[in-house]
Amino acid sequence: MLVIMRNDATEEDVRGVVAVIEQMGYQARPMPGRQRTTVGVVGNDGRVNADRIAALNGVYECLHVTPPYKQASREWKQEPTIVRLPGGLTIGGDEVVVMAGPCSVENEKQIIASAHAVRDAGATILRGGAYKPRSSPYSFQGLGLPGLKLLVKAREETGLLVVTEAMDPEGCDLVAEHADIIQIGARNMQNYSLLKRAGKSKKPVLLKRGLSATIQEFLLSAEYLLAEGNTDVILCERGIRSFDSQTRNLFDLSAIPVVKKLSHLPIIADPSHGTGLREFVPPMARAAVAAGADGLIVEVHPTPERAMSDGAQTLNPEQFEKMMRELRAIAEVIGRRVAEPAGARN
Amino acid sequence: MLVIMRNDATEEDVRGVVAVIEQMGYQARPMPGRQRTTVGVVGNDGRVNADRIAALNGVYECLHVTPPYKQASREWKQEPTIVRLPGGLTIGGDEVVVMAGPCSVENEKQIIASAHAVRDAGATILRGGAYKPRSSPYSFQGLGLPGLKLLVKAREETGLLVVTEAMDPEGCDLVAEHADIIQIGARNMQNYSLLKRAGKSKKPVLLKRGLSATIQEFLLSAEYLLAEGNTDVILCERGIRSFDSQTRNLFDLSAIPVVKKLSHLPIIADPSHGTGLREFVPPMARAAVAAGADGLIVEVHPTPERAMSDGAQTLNPEQFEKMMRELRAIAEVIGRRVAEPAGARN
Amino acid sequence: MLVIMRNDATEEDVRGVVAVIEQMGYQARPMPGRQRTTVGVVGNDGRVNADRIAALNGVYECLHVTPPYKQASREWKQEPTIVRLPGGLTIGGDEVVVMAGPCSVENEKQIIASAHAVRDAGATILRGGAYKPRSSPYSFQGLGLPGLKLLVKAREETGLLVVTEAMDPEGCDLVAEHADIIQIGARNMQNYSLLKRAGKSKKPVLLKRGLSATIQEFLLSAEYLLAEGNTDVILCERGIRSFDSQTRNLFDLSAIPVVKKLSHLPIIADPSHGTGLREFVPPMARAAVAAGADGLIVEVHPTPERAMSDGAQTLNPEQFEKMMRELRAIAEVIGRRVAEPAGARN
Amino acid sequence: MLVIMRNDATEEDVRGVVAVIEQMGYQARPMPGRQRTTVGVVGNDGRVNADRIAALNGVYECLHVTPPYKQASREWKQEPTIVRLPGGLTIGGDEVVVMAGPCSVENEKQIIASAHAVRDAGATILRGGAYKPRSSPYSFQGLGLPGLKLLVKAREETGLLVVTEAMDPEGCDLVAEHADIIQIGARNMQNYSLLKRAGKSKKPVLLKRGLSATIQEFLLSAEYLLAEGNTDVILCERGIRSFDSQTRNLFDLSAIPVVKKLSHLPIIADPSHGTGLREFVPPMARAAVAAGADGLIVEVHPTPERAMSDGAQTLNPEQFEKMMRELRAIAEVIGRRVAEPAGARN
Repeated sequence: MLVIMRNDATEEDVRGVVAVIEQMGYQARPMPGRQRTTVGVVGNDGRVNADRIAALNGVYECLHVTPPYKQASREWKQEPTIVRLPGGLTIGGDEVVVMAGPCSVENEKQIIASAHAVRDAGATILRGGAYKPRSSPYSFQGLGLPGLKLLVKAREETGLLVVTEAMDPEGCDLVAEHADIIQIGARNMQNYSLLKRAGKSKKPVLLKRGLSATIQEFLLSAEYLLAEGNTDVILCERGIRSFDSQTRNLFDLSAIPVVKKLSHLPIIADPSHGTGLREFVPPMARAAVAAGADGLIVEVHPTPERAMSDGAQTLNPEQFEKMMRELRAIAEVIGRRVAEPAGARN
Repeated sequence: MLVIMRNDATEEDVRGVVAVIEQMGYQARPMPGRQRTTVGVVGNDGRVNADRIAALNGVYECLHVTPPYKQASREWKQEPTIVRLPGGLTIGGDEVVVMAGPCSVENEKQIIASAHAVRDAGATILRGGAYKPRSSPYSFQGLGLPGLKLLVKAREETGLLVVTEAMDPEGCDLVAEHADIIQIGARNMQNYSLLKRAGKSKKPVLLKRGLSATIQEFLLSAEYLLAEGNTDVILCERGIRSFDSQTRNLFDLSAIPVVKKLSHLPIIADPSHGTGLREFVPPMARAAVAAGADGLIVEVHPTPERAMSDGAQTLNPEQFEKMMRELRAIAEVIGRRVAEPAGARN
Repeated sequence: MLVIMRNDATEEDVRGVVAVIEQMGYQARPMPGRQRTTVGVVGNDGRVNADRIAALNGVYECLHVTPPYKQASREWKQEPTIVRLPGGLTIGGDEVVVMAGPCSVENEKQIIASAHAVRDAGATILRGGAYKPRSSPYSFQGLGLPGLKLLVKAREETGLLVVTEAMDPEGCDLVAEHADIIQIGARNMQNYSLLKRAGKSKKPVLLKRGLSATIQEFLLSAEYLLAEGNTDVILCERGIRSFDSQTRNLFDLSAIPVVKKLSHLPIIADPSHGTGLREFVPPMARAAVAAGADGLIVEVHPTPERAMSDGAQTLNPEQFEKMMRELRAIAEVIGRRVAEPAGARN
Repeated sequence: MLVIMRNDATEEDVRGVVAVIEQMGYQARPMPGRQRTTVGVVGNDGRVNADRIAALNGVYECLHVTPPYKQASREWKQEPTIVRLPGGLTIGGDEVVVMAGPCSVENEKQIIASAHAVRDAGATILRGGAYKPRSSPYSFQGLGLPGLKLLVKAREETGLLVVTEAMDPEGCDLVAEHADIIQIGARNMQNYSLLKRAGKSKKPVLLKRGLSATIQEFLLSAEYLLAEGNTDVILCERGIRSFDSQTRNLFDLSAIPVVKKLSHLPIIADPSHGTGLREFVPPMARAAVAAGADGLIVEVHPTPERAMSDGAQTLNPEQFEKMMRELRAIAEVIGRRVAEPAGARN
């Protein structure tokens, strides 16, 4: 860390800063400059807590040189993390994995039809919400546990793996019991009680980026999972808040190469929430794969115009199938391949 | 709701939209224009779910005319809500209420000293975190239940009421048991499981605005509390995310008159988190009162440079006292008065 | 346009609104609802000026149904605009056009070397600033007219076309005289005096999106050019302002399909300014082409570490060449092809 | 400046950085740490150009310790700048100066009536646009030179000073000739040709903050004026871009104390554009004065509902007069006073 002193800081102020740094067990290296003194903090293994120093007299600013996350950092672990799923599917290696399905589990017929449709087009993981975080208390909040059981049934019928969202610590245990991947939604990216519970589960976690989370905050939330011992963490870019209302969110595809530079964790993309409109999903899905995403999560419904939620951003099976063909070709250009469902396309 | 059709929508598309609106139990009023047709939805008591309609062929956009929140709306209840607290203190009426204290409860000596200091300067409610949501898993996470008990002790010694944060449903019950006001933090503004639990408690709730929450989303989260039957909701503007790093957050004071226009709920302001730097707290606290805030929540610590968290944005008791004198004068200008601690200043 | 009345608006308020609408030469259609009245404005050919109506008593909000731009709209002109450049190059059709070169024209040797390097790798248009808008008055501001003459020389030597920025009305005339495409930079997207002058020139204009411009504002600035009679307008997404400092700007690739939906104008992407870091340029360039961009503008310098500006985001010729190979393959996947320099690769 | 090396940088990379720093005429001080080396740049009088260094091998990031502006900085000049206007009015001292008037100069009757109305209520400077930057090319663009002449006439009749906007270098000369203060609008904050021309004029300049300008960029634009020798610069906060559409812009009142900390220049606030809605103007005007603004610029029209532009955010004379009374009381609380028109209130 580097402590920048105000240009009117006195020598006593500098001595005060040095004293506190030394009290904290580090070494302090004052560097007087023409305009102001800066004090380097040396000897720290990880990140120094700046709170105490920032409050001292004469301090202008504390600049961190080391990022605040550790286990999530590529400096901590050079090789990419590859999350291994049942049946041999991997996320973070050469394969580009596509998760698809309806926004919500609505009933047995709908989820089974969805599962077959997305499997036929080449998806390997079924998505579908049993617990739905909705902005309004009056919106459909999901089927809950019966929804989880329907997802299990769909898995049995199709062989697809299942990813679904958990909204609180208790729900997290139920999701861990029934699904293959626990999803933490964007609104809960900094719900630390939930992150700790998911970090203690034995299932991989799909962590969505918060609506206005910086990449650093995103990796810090991943760090909560890693710190509890769960190393099977998959990140997901799903669009951030911006000033333009043309799209539901601002799909930040730069997050993909940025995360890959800073972290060893895999990252996938959600073009459905990222754009909010069906017609933008295929081009942005192609772009995500071209940018290096390790997978996609996409909303598909047998009849989007009858979906109970998110219909406007949901593909129908034909649109999804066409998109999958394009994705396979793009993946090849950059030396990767779209993972295929077991037994498919032989 | 108004459904805007694409300019190339066919008559069949329009008939499809009308049919779905009627299926949903409303009346549809198509208005053909020179460039496109719009279809009005009439007969709805509250907000219409746009999801199904937005997914139909030929639909360009659905415009809502009615806001999605209901009980939080000033159209639902004209008179301002006045939250009545033990000892006769009120929030939302003529009084401007000041909540003050350290970021975290650290130990008995610190919280008792803080409580005396802020009471002497004129605060009526003690703030202090027992459960701390921290971006990093390695930062101090609060004392937990022992912290709550120390707050109770501080209340007994000073007569101040206590506000403190709950982070999850279980913690919420403990906070409700010990504190006078349950705080829901910015990161948890859309933690619906927590909101539902707080909505079921019998204690007033201080709901902080999420980091990138629109006012509409903010009021929808309040609606979760109201929908559970808890009408003692106090909103709090605490700064939102922006593109400039000069301040920790962007303190959005316009939110105060905007909320007062749209809702009957009281709203206070947090200039400490709103700015992140001690020297900006007094001017922005004055501005908040001048803009019509029903109260303030401010970080004060006996020795900010030794605080375990948020030292840089924390006032010392002398700074706080000077600020309180200015606030009293500003409140008078707009026909209000700063609430005084029981037995004080007589 | 639709006028939403406040829920407490009186009948007199509604009559006042109707009267003003009729004064303005339109028809008014009041629609009383359960909660409030809305008044439709009918008979307008283009967009109604809301300013007068929004100021009337009892008006809550004016909602526009028709976008405020006209000639830039796809509703005005269905077929995509294809900008035809000297030598047969086209922008907006099947070809994906790559513009490349240094941030600034520094001297003859540098610009000639750059031109050869980018032509050899397959670029067809040379970029390079003669007039440089710099945040600081103390930064290098470009060579000015001598820089324009060096660009002409580079064109003569390599056959590349030339695009370069104009910063004010007079400079615009000089750029129009020397270059093949006039660039309007992001900071000047709403410099209307400059837009009007460029709209009167006979050269195509490359209009960059402003740092926090909505797509609607972007198209309105294009409308300034079109309204002056210049239909050869090429839009350019180059990154917008966001809250995260990991990248210089937030590269908004969704803008590509969004613009293509709303407008017939071609749109290219600038991954150099869009990300600000060399290593992010190739993945985001691939993503831009996959998303449907009609071209790219990329910073390339023979020795980026000696560039006078923007070195950190500049590719060297080898990096650029490798990227071009990937772009050709991606373009093919979506049925397009990267334009080749005349006489190349035969 | 501090150069942060990547944690995998080699010793040769560090030597390369040191060599370039020394070539640039500074001294380099490498500080090897446990995780990475940082290199301090010492001996620079002002800000070091980071472009060349950021492009070198092994460099992670360049951190600036010195802000990039110089003459605008409070470190360069401790005492606040007081802009002295004809007739003895000052901006930046004890007085709080109120500029008021219509959005646009529409005709003689309107501007004269406006001038009398705002003078009677206590304004000392008349605002009114003769050149109007409008998002749409089809909106009213102002009367131009005849508008300037009407402003001169209003000054003659009322004794008010005049502030009005210039949009390009030529227009700037005309505005300088007719008005007392040249306004540079938000859209033109980085129109450097215009800034340079205004910097060469002999009239004070009111510089509005750009829609998404950081405070640093804002001060850098002021630096363009100062660098040309014009020290009479008045800054103006007028709202920035945000994600919520409840208000036209996000009025950033923290900018007032932040600017006062970083710079000696006066700063005023524009609550009309800052909020966009008449009913929010008085509370936010009070808040601006309470936060320490040196003045206000407010839209007032004799009959807002007939204004040709910005009617919805414009006060009528009665509303303005009531607001002025509150502002006088708030100013007193913080030891200032609202400037009165010559001969008024005696």
